[in-house]
Amino acid sequence: MAGNSFGNFFKITTFGESHGEAVGVIVDGVTPGVELDEQYIQVQMDRRKPGQSPVTSPRKEYDVIRILSGIFEGKTTGTPLFIMLHNKDMRPAAYDDIKYTFRPGHADYSYLKKYGIRDHRGSGRASGRETAGRVAGGAVARKLLENRGVSVIAYTKEIGGIKCHTFNESVIEQNEVRACDPIAAVKMIEKIERLAAIGDSCGGIVECRIRGLHAGLGEPVFDKLDAELAKAMLSIGAVKGIEFGAGFAAAEMLGSQHNDEMDSSGFLSNHAGGIVGGISTGEEIVFRMAVKPTSSISVPQHTIDIHGQEQMIETIGRHDPCICPRIIPVVEAMSSIVIEDLLKRQAALHD
Amino acid sequence: MAGNSFGNFFKITTFGESHGEAVGVIVDGVTPGVELDEQYIQVQMDRRKPGQSPVTSPRKEYDVIRILSGIFEGKTTGTPLFIMLHNKDMRPAAYDDIKYTFRPGHADYSYLKKYGIRDHRGSGRASGRETAGRVAGGAVARKLLENRGVSVIAYTKEIGGIKCHTFNESVIEQNEVRACDPIAAVKMIEKIERLAAIGDSCGGIVECRIRGLHAGLGEPVFDKLDAELAKAMLSIGAVKGIEFGAGFAAAEMLGSQHNDEMDSSGFLSNHAGGIVGGISTGEEIVFRMAVKPTSSISVPQHTIDIHGQEQMIETIGRHDPCICPRIIPVVEAMSSIVIEDLLKRQAALHD
Amino acid sequence: MAGNSFGNFFKITTFGESHGEAVGVIVDGVTPGVELDEQYIQVQMDRRKPGQSPVTSPRKEYDVIRILSGIFEGKTTGTPLFIMLHNKDMRPAAYDDIKYTFRPGHADYSYLKKYGIRDHRGSGRASGRETAGRVAGGAVARKLLENRGVSVIAYTKEIGGIKCHTFNESVIEQNEVRACDPIAAVKMIEKIERLAAIGDSCGGIVECRIRGLHAGLGEPVFDKLDAELAKAMLSIGAVKGIEFGAGFAAAEMLGSQHNDEMDSSGFLSNHAGGIVGGISTGEEIVFRMAVKPTSSISVPQHTIDIHGQEQMIETIGRHDPCICPRIIPVVEAMSSIVIEDLLKRQAALHD
Amino acid sequence: MAGNSFGNFFKITTFGESHGEAVGVIVDGVTPGVELDEQYIQVQMDRRKPGQSPVTSPRKEYDVIRILSGIFEGKTTGTPLFIMLHNKDMRPAAYDDIKYTFRPGHADYSYLKKYGIRDHRGSGRASGRETAGRVAGGAVARKLLENRGVSVIAYTKEIGGIKCHTFNESVIEQNEVRACDPIAAVKMIEKIERLAAIGDSCGGIVECRIRGLHAGLGEPVFDKLDAELAKAMLSIGAVKGIEFGAGFAAAEMLGSQHNDEMDSSGFLSNHAGGIVGGISTGEEIVFRMAVKPTSSISVPQHTIDIHGQEQMIETIGRHDPCICPRIIPVVEAMSSIVIEDLLKRQAALHD
Repeated sequence: MAGNSFGNFFKITTFGESHGEAVGVIVDGVTPGVELDEQYIQVQMDRRKPGQSPVTSPRKEYDVIRILSGIFEGKTTGTPLFIMLHNKDMRPAAYDDIKYTFRPGHADYSYLKKYGIRDHRGSGRASGRETAGRVAGGAVARKLLENRGVSVIAYTKEIGGIKCHTFNESVIEQNEVRACDPIAAVKMIEKIERLAAIGDSCGGIVECRIRGLHAGLGEPVFDKLDAELAKAMLSIGAVKGIEFGAGFAAAEMLGSQHNDEMDSSGFLSNHAGGIVGGISTGEEIVFRMAVKPTSSISVPQHTIDIHGQEQMIETIGRHDPCICPRIIPVVEAMSSIVIEDLLKRQAALHD
Repeated sequence: MAGNSFGNFFKITTFGESHGEAVGVIVDGVTPGVELDEQYIQVQMDRRKPGQSPVTSPRKEYDVIRILSGIFEGKTTGTPLFIMLHNKDMRPAAYDDIKYTFRPGHADYSYLKKYGIRDHRGSGRASGRETAGRVAGGAVARKLLENRGVSVIAYTKEIGGIKCHTFNESVIEQNEVRACDPIAAVKMIEKIERLAAIGDSCGGIVECRIRGLHAGLGEPVFDKLDAELAKAMLSIGAVKGIEFGAGFAAAEMLGSQHNDEMDSSGFLSNHAGGIVGGISTGEEIVFRMAVKPTSSISVPQHTIDIHGQEQMIETIGRHDPCICPRIIPVVEAMSSIVIEDLLKRQAALHD
Repeated sequence: MAGNSFGNFFKITTFGESHGEAVGVIVDGVTPGVELDEQYIQVQMDRRKPGQSPVTSPRKEYDVIRILSGIFEGKTTGTPLFIMLHNKDMRPAAYDDIKYTFRPGHADYSYLKKYGIRDHRGSGRASGRETAGRVAGGAVARKLLENRGVSVIAYTKEIGGIKCHTFNESVIEQNEVRACDPIAAVKMIEKIERLAAIGDSCGGIVECRIRGLHAGLGEPVFDKLDAELAKAMLSIGAVKGIEFGAGFAAAEMLGSQHNDEMDSSGFLSNHAGGIVGGISTGEEIVFRMAVKPTSSISVPQHTIDIHGQEQMIETIGRHDPCICPRIIPVVEAMSSIVIEDLLKRQAALHD
Repeated sequence: MAGNSFGNFFKITTFGESHGEAVGVIVDGVTPGVELDEQYIQVQMDRRKPGQSPVTSPRKEYDVIRILSGIFEGKTTGTPLFIMLHNKDMRPAAYDDIKYTFRPGHADYSYLKKYGIRDHRGSGRASGRETAGRVAGGAVARKLLENRGVSVIAYTKEIGGIKCHTFNESVIEQNEVRACDPIAAVKMIEKIERLAAIGDSCGGIVECRIRGLHAGLGEPVFDKLDAELAKAMLSIGAVKGIEFGAGFAAAEMLGSQHNDEMDSSGFLSNHAGGIVGGISTGEEIVFRMAVKPTSSISVPQHTIDIHGQEQMIETIGRHDPCICPRIIPVVEAMSSIVIEDLLKRQAALHD
């Protein structure tokens, strides 16, 4: 199986490199007869695009999407949606110095080893720009979920060691780091700006919540809800870990603490993060991702070139000192695709 | 897609419930002409089976496997291997009291909500017994990897809050909890025994290392090496999280700390856990899983029955107070399947 | 993708060789809560088994199936059904003479070229015995279709040049060749017996009709209803062609003749065979398969051995002089799987 | 599984409607490092495009393709190729009269029944225009096969009852109907012109040959070479049947006639069409397709509208009176994809 499709019945297939002509997605398996317009998708694209705030990459991409098929008179037809963005602010020459040198933390080395050839311009296909197609496809899934009463939100939980201590949903889209705690947000922004000034970067933790989902979603024993979400999240470039509910803290809990008891009103706790036996319980789905610090830094680092010669490198270019704020719409997009796909699979099972 | 198959070219399909007649696996996509016998697979089954030590479930299953197809004159033929185990020590009546009551932490509730019907005997398909088929299939993958010089080992890193402080590979299979630190192992066993005595359970952390793998494995952008491993691991019942390399610690690192620099001898560190851009770098693959405390405890807990009536429940039966030791062969099996499958995909890409 | 699974949501995975220990199937994606017993499946197995009449192979297989998982208290649970048959009347020694020699018309040569190794005993996996697992899995699909009011029947249309001139459904299961014309059936049986006496074999044409299906089934543009049926049928050993509705005759028709006109009562003809644009029209689905003459004949033929040396060969053993009567339940089984799978996909699309 | 992808490792995903803005394809699983340019693909597009001769549709589409990703410095990178064509000569208003009326032979009725909504403009996704993406993707497969020494050719064998009596490969691309017999070609063209004059259409038979393929290709028991080709061919709009080698004629042959004997120089005949047991034998692969007469005719026909009211209809617009000449590049494209995909699967099996 080629690796650029995700989903089974609701399926996205993406294409495009960072400094190629265009990026985009074919969305297949879309419920027919659903009202959908470009503006709905554009809203999500704008949340992902570079240059939205001082703490993101200054690359200027307006990322205006077009839907070129699958819509008729304002409604989906059940045939594939094709959604495309042309790349505009391309500066491939800015990458000439890395044509023959591997940047630490980047996929330069592993891509060359895998394919034997490498489009080095802005990381080519390994660039975060690839996620534009995911966000477009995810927006379609989001629309379908909206019609079902299911919502997906992600936000920053921690950046550069600064943790959120409150969960205030209304502030998330009001601060530049999309944190759920406005006081922590201020400190996070300061920290990012300080690191950006010295050419360094930092990581963080992103949390996602899925609401409105009935019990029964997930396909044991391999395509469990948490297994599918884990694959989706780890397919995002900077994500290095995922945990559900209590997660790694569960390792230090007793069974009598971790088990979620029930009474006639429902579950009394949600250490499981809304998933037991790989199937949703009807509780909120909760999971967190570890996001690594951005690899592109201008601090000098040791590396080698393609001939094995040692080099020092300072990655210049236009980069995000912390990728958390822009990874959030990608997390929501991929989560939405997983959920819509599993809802369709559940319908098929019972038909 | 039905959910009981895993892998693409190298694919396992499993069946069987805890207290049904048999469990097993069809292994498809096996390289033809490879020497393989039942004994090779049996070794792995014996590492997974219950009753192997005082700290595991006392259920007595000899778990003797049979290969019923796909082998001719001692060699694989490239046609499907069918491997089966008959269940022996079944005591379905022991589960009569949970026929109508949901055990906290178990998949009783979510299975009933999903399927509308539930084989309650020993958790049916949601039982850890389901993993017997995975271990049998994984042993076939292990054999193929062995011929390639690739090895996969997993071991306990932490149990009940007790951490391993050394990594001594030679002791892993010598202690009952399969820990990599013999001193920690003694404390872990004591802790488990103490908890078992009061009917409680504990969780832990399992680590896995894959060695001998060349750079270039993984299929961006969705079927990345880490994405496939994450799905495989989260498909295992008790696993609630996974992290690669530095993992969640990366969230608090700077780019200048986390990036793995290189010199002419290779990588100078392995914070990435051997995977960059979803592709192996040639370094050791390293990842850890959070394992929740076993759900079956005899401490009284609040729950409801299928009519919504509140009940107290003490789960009796034969259970593992900590599942880490027995999850290890399952982790190795699933990892082996992921790697063998991706190696075959890499061969297809370049053919 | 390994090649021993068929179907997407409703999926079978088969295993087993002709003279191995067992053959069988895992059926995944079965609707939960459906009443099903072994006897229902056995009826179909008995229609496929050898030795049922003078015109079929005298091999004695009682083909008694067992369901070993996926059923609880007489109902499907939504987890995988495992259905197995032990081989009984095995005579592998009867095949010693073909261990090193390729039988004309058989897959001996192509299997060895593909796999580099060959289980020669009774054709191994290439044997028609492999279809036992298909018929068992197809019986499960048949049950689900029955509950939906959909029926699938296949029958002999022509054998050895003798054509059916009437369509009398009630006689099909009453004659040994399963022909739809009782007068033709008598001639067909005479012809087969005559050929059997001289050690030769003959081919024929099998027709299949699917009824009770609403309009709208099939997944353009690649997984069209006719495309899926064509793949299913051509995956059956002896089938060398398929045509839908008017089929090859359409090549000589005008558009004004072939187009199916409509009036307020529905379609006025069914040259399309119930499928237009790859989607069912609500009319009866009709298609025909060309079945080649059985390859096993005792007429002396020229061949070579594995060393390339020329040999004469007379295939002895227990064979069907015409495979049409026994291929019919296989055609029905595979058709049922295609339809049930596409019905589930249609449900997923609209969910 | 959504239905707009074809292939496993080498995979195409298409999009686009007849009178939408664009049609195109994402090609995934492309071998990296292969030289490829737009011109190579354009050659195949030009063979498929309308308006190439007096016997094809006069719609004017220059069908100039662009490759927007997956190529770097003239070579494939192993990442997805995206190939697109903008529709130019769109006249959606020409279809206003069929917005509410079902054209006989067309998928108007079945699409509406399936999706509940229909893009009626030029048949939308059900149009032959959808095959533009297939031909573009198939051209990529053709390039890879060319590098392996494998060739695929298709040609007209029969049109409107006029049969080719010779096989002269050199004349195929020299006559407007792509027939392999120049004398028959003249008669076919006359026949088509005669039918076009009275607004009627005719069908035909197309044959395909694949050469240079070693023995061993195909994945039993379900993904056999002939099964995969059958699915691919029946997924093409106008194809109503397929036969391999002797095909339907095999139904009237004896085993002693149909079996392909061998001597030390190889096979003595090729009734099997180069495929035995679903695996290539090393002989030429030969198969034929029944192509129905084009559904769009201006002869008045009975039909109904979406309210069930009876109507008479004459399909106007720009149509092909016989689709055989333009279906040929589509047949070659889909065949090439099947073969390249199976070659990659064979490489994976043996890795």
